[in-house]
Amino acid sequence: MRITDVVLHPIAIADPPLRSSYGLHAPFALRTIVELKTDSGLTGISETYGGDGPLAGLTAVRQRVLGMDPFQLAGLYRDLTATAAREVASAPGGRTQTYLVPGENPLDRHTRTYAAIEIACLDLIGKAVGKPCCDVIGGRVRDEVSFSAYLFYKHGGGGGVGHDIREDEYGEVLDAEACVRECRQMIAQYGFREIKLKGGVLDPDVEIASIRALRRAFGTSYPLRIDPNCAWSIETSVRVGRELQGELSEGGYLEDPCASLEGMGEVRRRLLAEGNQTDQASNVAVTCFADVPRAKELDAVQIVLSDPHYWGGMRNVQQLSHLTGVLGLGLSMHSNSHLGVSLMAMTHAAAACPNLTYACDTHYPWQTGRDEVVVGGRIPFINGCVQIPDKPGLGVELDYDQVARGRERYEKIPFRKRDDEAEMRKHVDPDWKRILPRW
Amino acid sequence: MRITDVVLHPIAIADPPLRSSYGLHAPFALRTIVELKTDSGLTGISETYGGDGPLAGLTAVRQRVLGMDPFQLAGLYRDLTATAAREVASAPGGRTQTYLVPGENPLDRHTRTYAAIEIACLDLIGKAVGKPCCDVIGGRVRDEVSFSAYLFYKHGGGGGVGHDIREDEYGEVLDAEACVRECRQMIAQYGFREIKLKGGVLDPDVEIASIRALRRAFGTSYPLRIDPNCAWSIETSVRVGRELQGELSEGGYLEDPCASLEGMGEVRRRLLAEGNQTDQASNVAVTCFADVPRAKELDAVQIVLSDPHYWGGMRNVQQLSHLTGVLGLGLSMHSNSHLGVSLMAMTHAAAACPNLTYACDTHYPWQTGRDEVVVGGRIPFINGCVQIPDKPGLGVELDYDQVARGRERYEKIPFRKRDDEAEMRKHVDPDWKRILPRW
Repeated sequence: MRITDVVLHPIAIADPPLRSSYGLHAPFALRTIVELKTDSGLTGISETYGGDGPLAGLTAVRQRVLGMDPFQLAGLYRDLTATAAREVASAPGGRTQTYLVPGENPLDRHTRTYAAIEIACLDLIGKAVGKPCCDVIGGRVRDEVSFSAYLFYKHGGGGGVGHDIREDEYGEVLDAEACVRECRQMIAQYGFREIKLKGGVLDPDVEIASIRALRRAFGTSYPLRIDPNCAWSIETSVRVGRELQGELSEGGYLEDPCASLEGMGEVRRRLLAEGNQTDQASNVAVTCFADVPRAKELDAVQIVLSDPHYWGGMRNVQQLSHLTGVLGLGLSMHSNSHLGVSLMAMTHAAAACPNLTYACDTHYPWQTGRDEVVVGGRIPFINGCVQIPDKPGLGVELDYDQVARGRERYEKIPFRKRDDEAEMRKHVDPDWKRILPRW
Repeated sequence: MRITDVVLHPIAIADPPLRSSYGLHAPFALRTIVELKTDSGLTGISETYGGDGPLAGLTAVRQRVLGMDPFQLAGLYRDLTATAAREVASAPGGRTQTYLVPGENPLDRHTRTYAAIEIACLDLIGKAVGKPCCDVIGGRVRDEVSFSAYLFYKHGGGGGVGHDIREDEYGEVLDAEACVRECRQMIAQYGFREIKLKGGVLDPDVEIASIRALRRAFGTSYPLRIDPNCAWSIETSVRVGRELQGELSEGGYLEDPCASLEGMGEVRRRLLAEGNQTDQASNVAVTCFADVPRAKELDAVQIVLSDPHYWGGMRNVQQLSHLTGVLGLGLSMHSNSHLGVSLMAMTHAAAACPNLTYACDTHYPWQTGRDEVVVGGRIPFINGCVQIPDKPGLGVELDYDQVARGRERYEKIPFRKRDDEAEMRKHVDPDWKRILPRW
């Protein structure tokens, strides 16, 4: 089996006005659907980041991928990451992710490009051998993967514009009470059993009140997490950690409260000195394997957030599961706005990770069936879990009419890069800038 | 495809009177050939440690393996190692390997059992999908794997007894001159380009003289290593490291000079203080993943020796390659007395390891075609390398007549466990004991 064509579908999907410390989600999120065609007649698919940058990255490896045996992935990874290692080594100031949306660190772009190819190759291998992807990479350790209710503060209104406006299921969510309502809706619909609140948006006291309200409403059987994406100072992080000790230390965590491993290490030391063992998670201070030993050394991070899209594919998520297991760290999974192809890649990767200690994140509830590109529409959740389908590869196929609609939406919109600051300036405050720490 | 039968062939293979700090090799080494039969008609094979212990371990997992889909390995690994983790946690004094031959730590026995099943399953998967094992586990990063000339001090005489005596190609090797002769023969026959001397046998000054003689005879283009298997004190280790700085620091290493990570850390500190950057390798102080972070922390070990047989299979060797790469450590591969099935598992695993910084060890030159169990006889080496065959799975099949001869030899000999001390007492010194440190 040899790869004979690389087809890239840039698409736009409606996205509601979700808030984070990065700013405001635009009405559309950008994704790229990748198809690898082969001389065997099989086609492998994947979904990755969208817009000009990711497209250029994928276009640049087209010649390297054409003619390739999809089984021979390690050489491709070596070739792509050798360049990356040189760039990281010569980058002024080294690696930093603090000011970048996860998945937008230019130093990790080769890893992201590789991931998109790897996932499509694993889909091909699965189809060729008649096995689900999770079994292709070593075998599942679970038949279903648990995801968490990923709550956002948001403005009123659904995603999209014009003909493509989507229904607003959740309304405006800008206080504790609305948070609880959003969570009730989401749990009723999906059955999630863990809860994560995207913070760093409102005054920390409002966010503390939101977490407390969630605990009151859902009780101790729903672990709670909050992720302000580095919006807080060390002082504020310690204060929030102290005030939410009861809520976050019972199977939950504090995620990237402040910037940098050094900052998170300081927060950890100060909380531990108070007898507060709240764990810290990260997908900002830890975004590549080189960050992990340093995070461990500083005791800055106890839970690493994996993600096949930027850690370098499904096998690399397994490697991260192994590495974190060896180092005594926990593992969960990060997400970006995504559709069903990504959801299945996340699910297969997570199913094959022995060390996976928390429900995974997913933005899936924020997208709708009108934008879904997989045959049969939305992937079902049962009790907050996605099942490994009894089908080869990822277990989903592309609905080409839906892909075409996604491409049309992409053509219609003017932007080619996510810019949450620009959206804030347009809709909230013309002078808005992402300032760290904000509080 | 489901596993329908587990067939175990205990065999004995002639082994020459090789010396190490453990003592003297017996005239026969014990191995077990594993066959996994399936309802698809395919049979997967592997080769592992021999004798009663390994056989009992494999027999004990038989029921767990029957009916298993060979693709679903991760669950088997989880099940077997969960028990191991509990045993390690409750072992008096924790893990220690110092007094054990590699592969004989009872705390790692589940990992070894798993490895034998995993390799046979990967052979099955390869055969089912028409791909070599290295491509099943992620793809090769090299088409051939380089091995080193593994020199031993030895008594005169080949392996075996009675009808099964083998020719003694190398004669007695108990001084520097004979070492050079042995190395010339081995390089002439196999084309090896790196040299490893098993030390810890003669007075350290004789072993220093041997390494110097090898350097004079073969020049700086052949990296040199010495492995006394913990026979030296910290003082002696530092002295040898000092005297052989020129010989070992150019692409070579000092392997397990003394016992324990703490001891090796002390040797490292003292050598570094003298400006001596000789790297240290280990397959005694580091035998499982839990040892690696501690080895790094103490800077005791710069090169980890992998081995699919006791690290838990081919994918675990890949995981170790990844872990060592992330931690900035080097990787090579350990071996025990073995035949062609093991050699191919080692070769496929090594081919799929991006971080593999040294030629691998192999005892293969010490065995002969008369004991080889693979169809076609001995695996060829070209310029010290074994090629990845253009065949599915491991790329070798069992010669059942040869397997039967191996079983006959096994039945004829009285012992069921390797005991190098007993051999020393029998042939060299009736009071011989393995004393550490000896020098």
